[in-house]
Amino acid sequence: MANSEHSQNCSANEVPGQQMYDLAARLFGICRSLTGNGVRETLQIIKGFIPELRIHEIPSGTRCLDWVVPDEWNIEDAYILDEKGNKIVDFRQNNLHVVGYSLPVDQEISLAELGKHLVSDPFKPDSIPYATSYYRPFWGFCLTHNQREGLKDQRYRVVIDSQLKAGSLTYADLVIPGRSDKEIFFSTYICHPSMANNEISGPVLATFLARWFGSRDNRHTFRFVFAPETIGAIVYLSKHLDNLKRKTVAAFNLTCVGDDRAVSVLPSRRGNSLTDRVAMHVLKHKAPGFKAYDFIQHRGSDERQYCSPGVDLPMVSIMRSKYATYPEYHTSKDDLTFISPEGLQGSFDLQKKCVHLLEANRIYKTRIIGEPHLARRGLDGQSLGGRSTCENRIMIQSFMACCDEATDLIAIADKIGVYAGDLIPYADKLVDLGLIEDRGDLESTGW
Amino acid sequence: MANSEHSQNCSANEVPGQQMYDLAARLFGICRSLTGNGVRETLQIIKGFIPELRIHEIPSGTRCLDWVVPDEWNIEDAYILDEKGNKIVDFRQNNLHVVGYSLPVDQEISLAELGKHLVSDPFKPDSIPYATSYYRPFWGFCLTHNQREGLKDQRYRVVIDSQLKAGSLTYADLVIPGRSDKEIFFSTYICHPSMANNEISGPVLATFLARWFGSRDNRHTFRFVFAPETIGAIVYLSKHLDNLKRKTVAAFNLTCVGDDRAVSVLPSRRGNSLTDRVAMHVLKHKAPGFKAYDFIQHRGSDERQYCSPGVDLPMVSIMRSKYATYPEYHTSKDDLTFISPEGLQGSFDLQKKCVHLLEANRIYKTRIIGEPHLARRGLDGQSLGGRSTCENRIMIQSFMACCDEATDLIAIADKIGVYAGDLIPYADKLVDLGLIEDRGDLESTGW
Amino acid sequence: MANSEHSQNCSANEVPGQQMYDLAARLFGICRSLTGNGVRETLQIIKGFIPELRIHEIPSGTRCLDWVVPDEWNIEDAYILDEKGNKIVDFRQNNLHVVGYSLPVDQEISLAELGKHLVSDPFKPDSIPYATSYYRPFWGFCLTHNQREGLKDQRYRVVIDSQLKAGSLTYADLVIPGRSDKEIFFSTYICHPSMANNEISGPVLATFLARWFGSRDNRHTFRFVFAPETIGAIVYLSKHLDNLKRKTVAAFNLTCVGDDRAVSVLPSRRGNSLTDRVAMHVLKHKAPGFKAYDFIQHRGSDERQYCSPGVDLPMVSIMRSKYATYPEYHTSKDDLTFISPEGLQGSFDLQKKCVHLLEANRIYKTRIIGEPHLARRGLDGQSLGGRSTCENRIMIQSFMACCDEATDLIAIADKIGVYAGDLIPYADKLVDLGLIEDRGDLESTGW
Repeated sequence: MANSEHSQNCSANEVPGQQMYDLAARLFGICRSLTGNGVRETLQIIKGFIPELRIHEIPSGTRCLDWVVPDEWNIEDAYILDEKGNKIVDFRQNNLHVVGYSLPVDQEISLAELGKHLVSDPFKPDSIPYATSYYRPFWGFCLTHNQREGLKDQRYRVVIDSQLKAGSLTYADLVIPGRSDKEIFFSTYICHPSMANNEISGPVLATFLARWFGSRDNRHTFRFVFAPETIGAIVYLSKHLDNLKRKTVAAFNLTCVGDDRAVSVLPSRRGNSLTDRVAMHVLKHKAPGFKAYDFIQHRGSDERQYCSPGVDLPMVSIMRSKYATYPEYHTSKDDLTFISPEGLQGSFDLQKKCVHLLEANRIYKTRIIGEPHLARRGLDGQSLGGRSTCENRIMIQSFMACCDEATDLIAIADKIGVYAGDLIPYADKLVDLGLIEDRGDLESTGW
Repeated sequence: MANSEHSQNCSANEVPGQQMYDLAARLFGICRSLTGNGVRETLQIIKGFIPELRIHEIPSGTRCLDWVVPDEWNIEDAYILDEKGNKIVDFRQNNLHVVGYSLPVDQEISLAELGKHLVSDPFKPDSIPYATSYYRPFWGFCLTHNQREGLKDQRYRVVIDSQLKAGSLTYADLVIPGRSDKEIFFSTYICHPSMANNEISGPVLATFLARWFGSRDNRHTFRFVFAPETIGAIVYLSKHLDNLKRKTVAAFNLTCVGDDRAVSVLPSRRGNSLTDRVAMHVLKHKAPGFKAYDFIQHRGSDERQYCSPGVDLPMVSIMRSKYATYPEYHTSKDDLTFISPEGLQGSFDLQKKCVHLLEANRIYKTRIIGEPHLARRGLDGQSLGGRSTCENRIMIQSFMACCDEATDLIAIADKIGVYAGDLIPYADKLVDLGLIEDRGDLESTGW
Repeated sequence: MANSEHSQNCSANEVPGQQMYDLAARLFGICRSLTGNGVRETLQIIKGFIPELRIHEIPSGTRCLDWVVPDEWNIEDAYILDEKGNKIVDFRQNNLHVVGYSLPVDQEISLAELGKHLVSDPFKPDSIPYATSYYRPFWGFCLTHNQREGLKDQRYRVVIDSQLKAGSLTYADLVIPGRSDKEIFFSTYICHPSMANNEISGPVLATFLARWFGSRDNRHTFRFVFAPETIGAIVYLSKHLDNLKRKTVAAFNLTCVGDDRAVSVLPSRRGNSLTDRVAMHVLKHKAPGFKAYDFIQHRGSDERQYCSPGVDLPMVSIMRSKYATYPEYHTSKDDLTFISPEGLQGSFDLQKKCVHLLEANRIYKTRIIGEPHLARRGLDGQSLGGRSTCENRIMIQSFMACCDEATDLIAIADKIGVYAGDLIPYADKLVDLGLIEDRGDLESTGW
């Protein structure tokens, strides 16, 4: 569980669960927000793992779509002292103790006055809630409801050593060129302080996926974005809208990917994109029992921007416990004990399977009329990937029965009732034999 | 429950349940049929409530589509006397006692001969059934099966003082101009004698809806038709087919709207029109547990004409207990005790809600890329219609996530999972702010 | 149960269950295979019932699509003798005892060597399994597992008096011209030795359906093919592909149609063809409880060729117990006791009903606006086919409510909730009256 100094030197590993966890642990305590040095530090550490990462700064006040980039916020320290000088709330113990974007303050106030600046949750009395006030000037502290209930009627000194002034918003992206300029797009966000499933699991998974695909020869180009939620996606869209709309064939939002309680999916706005079909196929076969949410009723992350009308990227979120559905969400209990190497590894595997299918997905045309004569090719009696003769024959014949230039690999697998990944060797073999013809993506044929 | 002399002077009232009931009571006892003075008297009383009503007379023998307007039928009196001169069946006690369109008769006959002219229902032995013989010359009496069983073998005198001769068919309509010439069409029928749910509840509801919309500035034009069932709809179609097909954006048949046992819906022939979607949305939210019927298998009123192939108006019936499904249907038990002010009021409310949504329904286009910055507009912290901040933000963001020029207000509400009426203030506010653009009706965009 | 010498002389009979069974019994014992004299003898007997049958010979080595016609196989005798000269396995007792396409052999071998040439099924220890080695040179015997277990360690003499050499593949077809050149296509196969449900029930049903339709004046042209499975379909496609694709409006594969345990259906590859709709409609009404299989997951007969991409005939199989689903399948227990006159008759009836609906299926256009005035045509009071007035009226009105040039007879019946065959007299009557217009097949209107 200890932070590994050397983790960035490890090779691109197919089972990086523990490495991901170690990176999460290293990044966990940094005080991120929409802007500021916590974001920069986070991205620099990530760049240690993926050196091609490009880090960008957008000046405060920049107009982006309907929004304006806010001032930059930084914080050194914050605490509340009681009459005896005891630090009863201390930012250095947990950076959730300060409301994000709090203005600086240093004054003595009554309990009644203090109460207007405290956030606690009576329904989760021993958790520190997470709160921000990005666009409304405010200062405040978050604390457990139990602690709040114990506060005595006395004078308190409140100190927040923060700065909110013109600066910039920091985000990063990375493009891994593939043989085609069609892109698979991954987005994740880096604006939450010490919370593990939501959020640090997302950037950590993105980092290791980028390492994995960066070390390979890929059909598609991959694009990764690490940006503060909402405003970061707005900034990114404002600069890359045409490119994203023209080139994106699949898109994933990486959020809440670290725990091991559940697997969940939030579809794209349109719900029937290739990404949706791939995600549902992978989850049906590899995570039976997964929970499916509704886009309009349950969305809540950067798909709100990337799937909005006029953009409509085919963005899907494959999550573990979805934001806003687990009791630890947006509290101090969403900590490093809530996520696990196994949870992160499971997310890594599901995303890799989705990409594997996206890379392989094609439509096919039979090059013969009727079924092929397998016997004269020795295909009724040979083993393909260790499978029995009869299964070979049935899979080949069933596969070819679906090669109609309208049904892609994933849809063929759904018709046959098998996992699409298991069909890939059959497809490759049949193309080699000249029995079927690769007709490319469904998209390029106008479907 | 007493008939109110002054009911036509009341203001257009949002809670007219009792007034509707009073009008029903006033009209109940009039002997209506396909034609004749009962229809005229009914329409004159209704005109007292909606003076703009236009009353029309179509001469007997007029060819209308596949039909011919029948002779006019009027009746003064009818009875059966036993040997002792007792009136054992008396039209003046209940006008259901005479088969509608009975030819005049005055003769003495045996019980055996009389039997050929009696209608009773052994399965409902204490109800007088409703029967007509519009297009086949006949005379007859309806009576309870219990009474019939008690008839002695003696001579009876049968008297029907009726007239069936060239005259005219009477119907009425009313057009309430709106800002657009696109029409919302209401049809109801006025051809049944003393029955309450089927039929007098329908004309009464039509009357009060016409008063309500007539006292307002409406987007749509409203058209109301009061005509005898089937032949009246045929007559109306023969005169207004092109207008109805060109202008009607929504249509409702008002029938069986008076009791309080159930809420039912009969969809249009195509089943997916705007009227169908509005009706289903309103019923789902405001009458959960409603019964949905099938057009082909359960239709039975004037939608048979208005939805027929070649016409295909989007006509839906929102009913209480649907015709042919309740035991009192088409008997003397469908009387003023079967309907209620509450039942009528419930129907009034549902129709008003449907129209409210039809008037408000639009598609929208976002005028920005991505979500709006609500904070700089003060929209994350203000209350809109008394709602909490957070709900405001979620509703605004969810609404805008659906403003894609393809999803109308009703469909947006279905996606968000709320009642469309609750979204209207958000839509209006967002248009005012310039964040979304009203792109008009779905129809005008070719969907 | 005895083979009837005179069965081919019977008239085309609507209840030919016993005649079909008798023909099955006559053909059962012939040793059919992909090629050879067993096939020729079978087709000659069938030609006795349908003299127009055309028998074709395709030389060995002919290239057909992806395949090559194999050498012709014939067999005179085969047996295994034990040390004492007892025939312990005898082809003349059951032709399943020899692996199909076995090479000739005559030698003495040890039990160990013999074991490499024996096929038995430990899970069905008292059945002789069916095995072939069409495309891999081999000789072998099939026997019950019980018998195999009892074999002693001694020398055995194995004799197979077979010939595998250049010759030809034999198949037959038959075209029954109709008023239109649009075709209804029936395929069946004739390559299995002594098995009843799979296979001889299929050719027997085809024979009697050809007799039945051959004796009538039909709207459609009928095409029947009797060919060895797989390679025969490949041969037929290689010669008739354009004709089949251009003219076939419905297609059925006749297989496993003889027992009485179940009714099953395998849809076409596309699943929504007219044949699929007809088959599902007939089965829903006439064989409730039938089993529906999935094309990709459960196909297994000549639909594998006729529905393959690039061919895509709308071929459906209406079966009794489907191949590969019943324990007797491909064993000596699939014998004449497994099928029955009743089972065959049931299949005959279902196919005849499907064709009846295909012949009658049309789309219609109403020639009037609104409903027709039935009373002035006497149609509210007359009986049509012995039905009551009210049902007449409802059926006529409901039927006309669906005459919208988009809904065909079968879809109309589904909407009304009745069997399409029961609507035919109404459709005919309404056309006669000029109330509706026959607008032909859906296909010809581009749907």
